[in-house]
Amino acid sequence: MKLAILFGGSSFEHEISIVSAITMKKVFKNTELSFIFVDAERQFYLIESDKMKSNFFSSGAYKKSKKLVLKNGAFNIEGIFGSKEIVFDTLLNLIHGRDGEDGKIASLMEFYKIPFISPRIEASVLSFNKLYTKFLAESLGVKTLSYQYLSKNEERKLTMEYPVIVKPVRLGSSIGVSIVKNDEELDYALDVAFEFDTDVIIEPFIDGVKEYNQAGTYTRDWELSIVEEPHKEEFLDFEKKYMDFSRDSQVLAADIDELLESKIKDTFKKIYDPLFKGAIIRCDFFVIEGEVYLNEINPIPGSMANYLFSDFEGMVERLSNNLPKEQSIQINYQYIHSIQSAKGKA
Amino acid sequence: MKLAILFGGSSFEHEISIVSAITMKKVFKNTELSFIFVDAERQFYLIESDKMKSNFFSSGAYKKSKKLVLKNGAFNIEGIFGSKEIVFDTLLNLIHGRDGEDGKIASLMEFYKIPFISPRIEASVLSFNKLYTKFLAESLGVKTLSYQYLSKNEERKLTMEYPVIVKPVRLGSSIGVSIVKNDEELDYALDVAFEFDTDVIIEPFIDGVKEYNQAGTYTRDWELSIVEEPHKEEFLDFEKKYMDFSRDSQVLAADIDELLESKIKDTFKKIYDPLFKGAIIRCDFFVIEGEVYLNEINPIPGSMANYLFSDFEGMVERLSNNLPKEQSIQINYQYIHSIQSAKGKA
Repeated sequence: MKLAILFGGSSFEHEISIVSAITMKKVFKNTELSFIFVDAERQFYLIESDKMKSNFFSSGAYKKSKKLVLKNGAFNIEGIFGSKEIVFDTLLNLIHGRDGEDGKIASLMEFYKIPFISPRIEASVLSFNKLYTKFLAESLGVKTLSYQYLSKNEERKLTMEYPVIVKPVRLGSSIGVSIVKNDEELDYALDVAFEFDTDVIIEPFIDGVKEYNQAGTYTRDWELSIVEEPHKEEFLDFEKKYMDFSRDSQVLAADIDELLESKIKDTFKKIYDPLFKGAIIRCDFFVIEGEVYLNEINPIPGSMANYLFSDFEGMVERLSNNLPKEQSIQINYQYIHSIQSAKGKA
Repeated sequence: MKLAILFGGSSFEHEISIVSAITMKKVFKNTELSFIFVDAERQFYLIESDKMKSNFFSSGAYKKSKKLVLKNGAFNIEGIFGSKEIVFDTLLNLIHGRDGEDGKIASLMEFYKIPFISPRIEASVLSFNKLYTKFLAESLGVKTLSYQYLSKNEERKLTMEYPVIVKPVRLGSSIGVSIVKNDEELDYALDVAFEFDTDVIIEPFIDGVKEYNQAGTYTRDWELSIVEEPHKEEFLDFEKKYMDFSRDSQVLAADIDELLESKIKDTFKKIYDPLFKGAIIRCDFFVIEGEVYLNEINPIPGSMANYLFSDFEGMVERLSNNLPKEQSIQINYQYIHSIQSAKGKA
């Protein structure tokens, strides 16, 4: 299999996307990889495999790599004697945050008919925006925590008890997230969150709540990861998450009973199917009094949560062979023809 | 003002987008227009103004026009001596249906930093999908009709009384829509709708219900159209809609009292702000016992509903000068630098 890894992007998570992509080089052993970098200006570059080191990007050295242009259903290297297509079977979208998770990359790949692993446009928009994730969960009968939605220009009046957790509506990786215990902290937390987004979502913060992560995809059948109980500090800050994105060895399954495990897996499937077909996602759940609550959908998890799967590489190949197909639309100009004909012009 | 009109697209509404674009040529009198066509294969072409006639497209003659490629924040004509940018102030997205209304064009324009008039990605996804429109309306406290959502592989069991209206979840312009009075008709209507989409939405069909259309945008202030009471046959079929897309002279305002008019305008504003900033949309409302119900959001109305506005051209220019700005994200590699420095590599 020939796989292109797309990473970088105009995103607050640009750097951890680089870390994710470098990790992929270790994870894929029998796959021919090409690396396509999107820089802060959204210029595409083809990065040679031996250049996949973080300082190649932070130093700006990447700018000497070959630039790519999207046209005719492919990424192309442009040269004096015309352009040359980059050939691969499937592209893996590994851009975290804006561009990658908000639907832009899904749109570009669909528009240019490039086979890709990633949530599609609708799935991206509903999972990137935490308010819309609530709408989705509700429509599926999946529980979520109660919440308050607040826009930048609205009065900062809290309608729930402390402690609460304040999150920008559209970001991942704990950026701009704060736990808040009183009015003073709230004001500061909102200032921080509004640095990153025009809207925030506020939820009760439940100290010591049980948290479980389930990743998975659908290829010819369900391929679900082990259930992980993530390491909990108060919550992972960005720098710890940063390290987290470079994980490449499998972790241990959470010690939970069969009933809870099957509840978690069933909830995952309910959320995934059919909206997330074509993607490898991770759902982060809370368990409160035996009930499963969706905390967040991570539409493009760090290093795609490879460490939760026993055969990540094989799964990616199977998914690559079972991607959703775009509906074919025939354009035959029948209405224009019939109107021209009625006007005597045809 | 220099305005680029983007039209065509890989969409069941490809042909009416051509009609919309041709209409724009008559509507804009003091604006320098360029026309960018997206053909069924999603190749961009620059169309000379005097070629803007329907048979130029239906005959395939457009293929001799100059091809365009998106790169470096612009559409470019590629030539032997490098590429040349197409210069304009703003692009008007006039692609109806797939590509134009589903978030793809919004994504491409945002990614390539081209100023554009159109719903943004989230607004596109929420208005293109009639189920998500219900979620949105509910969250805003806007009434909609009760509904049943049905996927292709589900049992065809109706949970409401006849007559009902069956609609593909993701299309506009009455394509695949049927009014259904009994079980036999239901089966056929579902077969038709599932030709176009994997999911349908079924609502009660209320014969003789009052229907009102309100279009508008936000520039430096609200610019709302007159309220129109659309011509009603049982409902407009595609060929009548087709003619409808070429309207270019202003219509008369509906004969309604001030209270109802202000209710309709207030509901429009609630839906529009802030999600649809940057777009000119039309909302189609029902009025039942004095209450306003959202029927559909038309994110890219035919010929942008120019016939509802007294100064459409001026409004487009004001909107062009007041488009939403993308948040600027600085990428400074601080985490990579700090990690390299901790490792003693920096």
